[in-house]
Amino acid sequence: MVSEIITIGDEILIGQVVDTNSAWMAEQLNLNGIIVRQIISVADTREDIISALGSANRNADLVLITGGLGPTKDDITKDVLCEYFNTGLVFNEEAFKNVERLFRYRNIEITDVNRQQAMVPEGSIVFGNLYGTAPGLWMKKGSTVFVFMPGIPYEMQAIMEDHVIPAIRQHLNIKTAVYHKTVLTQGTFEARLSAMIRDWEKEAGAKGIKLAYLPSPGFVRLRLSAYGEDMDKIRSDIDGMVKKLEKRIPQYIYGYDKDTLEEVTGEILKKSQMTVATAESCTGGSIAQLLTSVSGSSEYFKGSVVAYSNEIKENILKVTKESLEKYGAVSKHVVEEMAEGVRTLYDTDYAVSTSGIAGPSGGTEEKPVGTTWICVCSKNSIRSEKFLFGEHRGRNIRKTALTGLNMLRKLILEEAGK
Amino acid sequence: MVSEIITIGDEILIGQVVDTNSAWMAEQLNLNGIIVRQIISVADTREDIISALGSANRNADLVLITGGLGPTKDDITKDVLCEYFNTGLVFNEEAFKNVERLFRYRNIEITDVNRQQAMVPEGSIVFGNLYGTAPGLWMKKGSTVFVFMPGIPYEMQAIMEDHVIPAIRQHLNIKTAVYHKTVLTQGTFEARLSAMIRDWEKEAGAKGIKLAYLPSPGFVRLRLSAYGEDMDKIRSDIDGMVKKLEKRIPQYIYGYDKDTLEEVTGEILKKSQMTVATAESCTGGSIAQLLTSVSGSSEYFKGSVVAYSNEIKENILKVTKESLEKYGAVSKHVVEEMAEGVRTLYDTDYAVSTSGIAGPSGGTEEKPVGTTWICVCSKNSIRSEKFLFGEHRGRNIRKTALTGLNMLRKLILEEAGK
Repeated sequence: MVSEIITIGDEILIGQVVDTNSAWMAEQLNLNGIIVRQIISVADTREDIISALGSANRNADLVLITGGLGPTKDDITKDVLCEYFNTGLVFNEEAFKNVERLFRYRNIEITDVNRQQAMVPEGSIVFGNLYGTAPGLWMKKGSTVFVFMPGIPYEMQAIMEDHVIPAIRQHLNIKTAVYHKTVLTQGTFEARLSAMIRDWEKEAGAKGIKLAYLPSPGFVRLRLSAYGEDMDKIRSDIDGMVKKLEKRIPQYIYGYDKDTLEEVTGEILKKSQMTVATAESCTGGSIAQLLTSVSGSSEYFKGSVVAYSNEIKENILKVTKESLEKYGAVSKHVVEEMAEGVRTLYDTDYAVSTSGIAGPSGGTEEKPVGTTWICVCSKNSIRSEKFLFGEHRGRNIRKTALTGLNMLRKLILEEAGK
Repeated sequence: MVSEIITIGDEILIGQVVDTNSAWMAEQLNLNGIIVRQIISVADTREDIISALGSANRNADLVLITGGLGPTKDDITKDVLCEYFNTGLVFNEEAFKNVERLFRYRNIEITDVNRQQAMVPEGSIVFGNLYGTAPGLWMKKGSTVFVFMPGIPYEMQAIMEDHVIPAIRQHLNIKTAVYHKTVLTQGTFEARLSAMIRDWEKEAGAKGIKLAYLPSPGFVRLRLSAYGEDMDKIRSDIDGMVKKLEKRIPQYIYGYDKDTLEEVTGEILKKSQMTVATAESCTGGSIAQLLTSVSGSSEYFKGSVVAYSNEIKENILKVTKESLEKYGAVSKHVVEEMAEGVRTLYDTDYAVSTSGIAGPSGGTEEKPVGTTWICVCSKNSIRSEKFLFGEHRGRNIRKTALTGLNMLRKLILEEAGK
């Protein structure tokens, strides 16, 4: 069972857009045990599209194609499809109802051009598009299945999840059950995590569970995948191994699958009816920005003091001149006074503060670039920690912000007795 | 003159990483007048690499390949190259000196494995890699040129800019001069911009200048490209058209080429020795985060008050209860009091403030989601404006932050009499 991905669009070949659809589709296929042999991007021209389809027909059992389906005139794909599959366009009632639905919602009148969007190659199976006018199309040539989808990522993703993946599984008669769970960790890096859980990894491997480390600046995702005859069994295998992992490295796990640290932390604050404020130096507002990226965050986030200059640290956050002079702005004393300062000023239950040397300049021998103090505090506790991140300004800021959020999350859970 | 791009790596085919190298290389080729016929991603296997090279050899004059060159054992590309080009590996002194230089810098001892990294296929031209151990390789088969580069984006980009592009131009005997200038605009969108400058576009077209609109949330880049025999002529054509554009839409242009709004604004603040603070509600710290993403921003940025709750607006920024009750938090009165409040509190020359309904919830008939007030002020002026952005929370926040920065930039320039 071999598959290929084809993305169509001049904008890809002139480098105007990065093709993110391919990676997304490849991951979905991979998670269902289908191997992607190659990904190819071609121009919006008849010859290139036909040549790509022909080559895929010879080499693959399944071909996913995005792009070239839409209302603009340069999208010639549908005509090329008719030529390649030796068929003609027919009006599709269901696709037209979808166009009507979308236009009614947007309060736009339907014209003849829009009727065109409901024309599909005869013999194709039509998949509804929740968010756009161009439907997904399933066609066959010889033994190869071709699935055409629009190039707009969220349209394509919904069609894939709702229709294409189930249809592929049915068509290929995939009896194999597939189950995945992604464990999200913060506070360590890939190599150290891997060393810590080596024997757990072995045990998972013995159960036929595949592991993938997916690192990003500031966190590492660990994906567990299992394939088998019996969904209940593989699900319970994976859930069992996740439970063991939770006991093994509880200090690093903050969520699962599509969770984000800012959402998880926000949920905990909301449930416990607690509020938070931040006092940020080196992160320059990044923690506030993360927290407020979540809709509804006004329930628990009151605000922030970004204190980039020492003057603001002193005048607003009431950091003592003594601490600043004696220990410097990047120190345990100052970061703790910042956290206490903003918690008092903003009258919140919790506070997070940061002070560090983000770089690339400003480092000294004693405090090199990447040196960062982070503090979290509540009415009853204060906890601060020193980190040495790297040399890249943007990554240092990001790591500091995520680490601060995670320290906050842990302190709240601990104080709630969880 | 037809080119192809091949990216090698299992991680691309399982969807673990998005292939950003292709778009970057495609843009560089395109800017030099070289057409990219297709982009293909294949696995790290002998068969797939050889098949991709063979197909490219038949169809293209120039092939750029990234990935598969590096110290890890799964990178088999070099052996496959020797097989495909029917040659063997030889030790390259220059490449070895580069490995030595990098290792000395990182304080790591050189082992035999590292000597391996200086082995290159006999007959290849070697391009130095500033940031990594794997060199770029230029090889020929028949009339097709193959250029192999490491897959790490910044390593590849430096090799491309320093060596590959000049070598391609020389090899292909490209006499055509190429000149580009990108004009960066903020405060309008593609369709409106295009309508505003229609006759300017016509004039540029008549001079053989190509235009590309490159929109992102919050700003639109406009790229001018010209090709010709005489560099001085096309440069002066483009510079002349840019000057005309500057006169036509001065209110929207904030920079050129690789400038960012936060850097440009920072430069202006630095030069005029002025300071700034922000008071942020709906942007939640995003303006502060943008300003502090620039190294050296502590010279002009003092800090921020993120006032997400009305309580903080009142207690810290001294927004009046009356304004909050009478006009609501998203209003001209409140946003102006916020700006004045933070400017006084932080004792800065300038201040920016924001208050809006980022969504997706919180909208009303009178103030729908996307409604945003932004204010900038100095000692002598205060300016506020209402915007209606869209329905997407993240994009609303981003657009508000960029618009606020641009309003700040314009006010400073105006007060400096420029």
